Amino acid sequence: MHYGNLRRSLWLLLEPKARTKRGLSWLNICLLLLIVMATLTAIIETEPLIVRGRQHIFSGLQYVFGTVFAVEYVARLWVAAEVPGDEGPWAKRWRFVRSPSAIIDLIVVLAAFAPLIAGDVASLRMLRLVRILGLARLGKLSAAVHGISAAVYSRRFELGVTAGIAIMFMVFGATLLYWIEGEVQPDQFGSIPRAMWWAVVTMTTIGYGDAYPITAAGRFAAAFIALSGVGLIAMPTGILAAAFSDAMQSHHHGPHGEDVDLD
Amino acid sequence: MHYGNLRRSLWLLLEPKARTKRGLSWLNICLLLLIVMATLTAIIETEPLIVRGRQHIFSGLQYVFGTVFAVEYVARLWVAAEVPGDEGPWAKRWRFVRSPSAIIDLIVVLAAFAPLIAGDVASLRMLRLVRILGLARLGKLSAAVHGISAAVYSRRFELGVTAGIAIMFMVFGATLLYWIEGEVQPDQFGSIPRAMWWAVVTMTTIGYGDAYPITAAGRFAAAFIALSGVGLIAMPTGILAAAFSDAMQSHHHGPHGEDVDLD
Amino acid sequence: MHYGNLRRSLWLLLEPKARTKRGLSWLNICLLLLIVMATLTAIIETEPLIVRGRQHIFSGLQYVFGTVFAVEYVARLWVAAEVPGDEGPWAKRWRFVRSPSAIIDLIVVLAAFAPLIAGDVASLRMLRLVRILGLARLGKLSAAVHGISAAVYSRRFELGVTAGIAIMFMVFGATLLYWIEGEVQPDQFGSIPRAMWWAVVTMTTIGYGDAYPITAAGRFAAAFIALSGVGLIAMPTGILAAAFSDAMQSHHHGPHGEDVDLD
Amino acid sequence: MHYGNLRRSLWLLLEPKARTKRGLSWLNICLLLLIVMATLTAIIETEPLIVRGRQHIFSGLQYVFGTVFAVEYVARLWVAAEVPGDEGPWAKRWRFVRSPSAIIDLIVVLAAFAPLIAGDVASLRMLRLVRILGLARLGKLSAAVHGISAAVYSRRFELGVTAGIAIMFMVFGATLLYWIEGEVQPDQFGSIPRAMWWAVVTMTTIGYGDAYPITAAGRFAAAFIALSGVGLIAMPTGILAAAFSDAMQSHHHGPHGEDVDLD
Repeated sequence: MHYGNLRRSLWLLLEPKARTKRGLSWLNICLLLLIVMATLTAIIETEPLIVRGRQHIFSGLQYVFGTVFAVEYVARLWVAAEVPGDEGPWAKRWRFVRSPSAIIDLIVVLAAFAPLIAGDVASLRMLRLVRILGLARLGKLSAAVHGISAAVYSRRFELGVTAGIAIMFMVFGATLLYWIEGEVQPDQFGSIPRAMWWAVVTMTTIGYGDAYPITAAGRFAAAFIALSGVGLIAMPTGILAAAFSDAMQSHHHGPHGEDVDLD
Repeated sequence: MHYGNLRRSLWLLLEPKARTKRGLSWLNICLLLLIVMATLTAIIETEPLIVRGRQHIFSGLQYVFGTVFAVEYVARLWVAAEVPGDEGPWAKRWRFVRSPSAIIDLIVVLAAFAPLIAGDVASLRMLRLVRILGLARLGKLSAAVHGISAAVYSRRFELGVTAGIAIMFMVFGATLLYWIEGEVQPDQFGSIPRAMWWAVVTMTTIGYGDAYPITAAGRFAAAFIALSGVGLIAMPTGILAAAFSDAMQSHHHGPHGEDVDLD
Repeated sequence: MHYGNLRRSLWLLLEPKARTKRGLSWLNICLLLLIVMATLTAIIETEPLIVRGRQHIFSGLQYVFGTVFAVEYVARLWVAAEVPGDEGPWAKRWRFVRSPSAIIDLIVVLAAFAPLIAGDVASLRMLRLVRILGLARLGKLSAAVHGISAAVYSRRFELGVTAGIAIMFMVFGATLLYWIEGEVQPDQFGSIPRAMWWAVVTMTTIGYGDAYPITAAGRFAAAFIALSGVGLIAMPTGILAAAFSDAMQSHHHGPHGEDVDLD
Repeated sequence: MHYGNLRRSLWLLLEPKARTKRGLSWLNICLLLLIVMATLTAIIETEPLIVRGRQHIFSGLQYVFGTVFAVEYVARLWVAAEVPGDEGPWAKRWRFVRSPSAIIDLIVVLAAFAPLIAGDVASLRMLRLVRILGLARLGKLSAAVHGISAAVYSRRFELGVTAGIAIMFMVFGATLLYWIEGEVQPDQFGSIPRAMWWAVVTMTTIGYGDAYPITAAGRFAAAFIALSGVGLIAMPTGILAAAFSDAMQSHHHGPHGEDVDLD
């Protein structure tokens, strides 16, 4: 039974949902750190000033990370037979292969071994970040992730209406500036889609400075749109604040408050 | 009675308030999608890089949308006789024609058939967006729209006072910068109205970069105004957050939670 | 007794606190509108493109507004004798003359009649805005003004600590960027006071674009400061939201909720 | 016993925790003002336009402040023997010398007397600001500092998750813009680290204007990232608002409201 025991132990280490204790297993923590390091490497790798003359280091690292994640993929495929259920081991494995997270893992592994096809394919390694997101749903942060999701979900209609109002204000503002400044600054306001860029940059209060009205009428209209942009930020913030206040009160002070974070 | 039945059925399909079931009828959902498509077409149509060489497609689309909305207008005019009341059918229709939404619809239809009078008239098609807003008040989003309106309305005086304080800070800041930087940068700060543009762009934290103080005294004053701009955003956000927290608690958890959306 | 009656009637019209009914008297509403108009005139008057060739209109308007406010000042001086108290009428009037609002009124009146001494003195007319603020404390908005003041006052220590933390982050950020970018961009980061301008513009998320780091180390440090700027806005907003939620609940739903706005 | 009485009196003046009365002693208030003045001097001292020709004033001031803080350090070392405990006076003093605040004080004193080693060492004087932070924890502001800390601490997981989501959005946005604009603007988007600068500046809504997309596809992607930046600000603000609302209600209205500040 040695072989079965090994598979079962590995499954308990790899599958967070199978753990009886809270928190992540040491193996998953190692994999989490490896994902962060592989992501950082993939980010740094795109910078020519750093990579120049050190291509062999980065391609070496890429192969190392790729091999580790390939081994992990094969291991997960093997231990998938331990998933509870009536199906045979290969049916369970085929179910694992078709799961979205396994597909992402496979793409990431293949991307690691595709250095010959440069550029865009290499960026697929960023997909690993989705794995971090998936693991964060499990450990100590699970209560927080659940609370935030519940708060946002409970106000999805209010947030949707706010987003709708914001989009209408943007279309309205872009149309207005297109009328007023369209002929003065055709590059920036010569069409509603062009003026939309200005509207987004203004109502989110970013204000790059690549597009702004220069006529008195345009500035007057833009000031009105800009001030309503304060509302664009104040409305969802207010809705979320109310949602967090309501949703988390039960979480923090409610009957389930005591069984959080017991690991 | 075939003719009266048809008119009644069409009225039930077209008039959301007449429906006994929740949500919008299939006809109104189709019209909603058509309004979104017509608006998107009207937006894209203004971009010369897209339209060039395809004028016939866009003018064709415009006639198609115009015809559909014209048919809809005539249909609504016809079924307006089904509105409950003691008046005769033509009195009810005349009432419909004078209603604000019908006037907007008529303008939109006429704008669709006015391609010879270019530019500004074409932009009237944007008015269709008002129709989307009107329909959003009915379907699943009605509770959210009602909650947001009620929250904003309940704090209209507080928001008004905040807006008043913000305007005063802007006038004060603009006057200050006009004193300090008026002679150094006459184009940007040479008058209070000019400095007002800077004040709006600064206090909304947009900061295009077309106007900013360059003297030490001006920067000192501007830093003070800029930091008070944080309050300009924090105050209405805080007021709205408190309003949403109060107003929606009764909506989400209160005794009236179940009787929403029955109109 | 005709003379005494007239003085009493005028006092009831001019002094909002003497009114038995809610809201402002018709005379005070007229004066409020005059203050708004005089302020707008004073703002527009500084714009050479509008004033050029119309100086006589604006100086005429200025004399008209000045005369009205001078008459108002004399009237208030006269009716000050109606203030309840044991003092003689001239003692009451002397008390009125020394009150801050009367001093501001006198400065505004004198500024209106000082067109020969141009520029800065003319801008003293902006002080009229303080009058609007004073009147807003009385009419329908009084409950809102009181609620906002109470909320801000109840959290003055928390807001003060937040402001202190923000200032420390700014000094810290400015020192950091002065170390890193001081020699690369001496004009923008060559001293801590210069780097402070960058820190204020960054942490308030204005971002004019006149000063930003260009080295990798500087951008890394600036990204850290910029992200903490989100907290600079989130902290006071959260504190104010909590304060408004607490302070206004008693106002909106409390035992005094029913006696608001009865005029 | 004169010597012991003096040491005890000085200890009561210097050590805020030893005081029986509320607030800071007059000596600590003087030292607080001196710290603020010394910090301001250290800030101004870096500005060549102010210092030029006045170096002797600033180096003189620096020696004065340095001497005062050296005397304070020696005094604190002396009175450290008054700390309650079973150890001998020198053991207590050695404990004091090893405490983090004493180490910072020693560095600040040494930095004041190191004008020959210019630039970076002089900036160590900024460390004095930490002292202000330490003293703010004691006086009237202690309840506010405690309330803010408690509120932030109670939501540390939610804030951490929000920060994690924000970082992922930034990496995602930077990768997207690197794909789309990398070849068009290699200086700004030619690598993911370079595009990260744009992502931070955009999602914090700063928008310096040194980096922004210029292609239609890039602007479309950037608009999406920019709008999600509103959420980046709205989420922590909402969480903090809810935390302040919960944490301070017990502080302001709860049973422990009266026993604050007794330490």
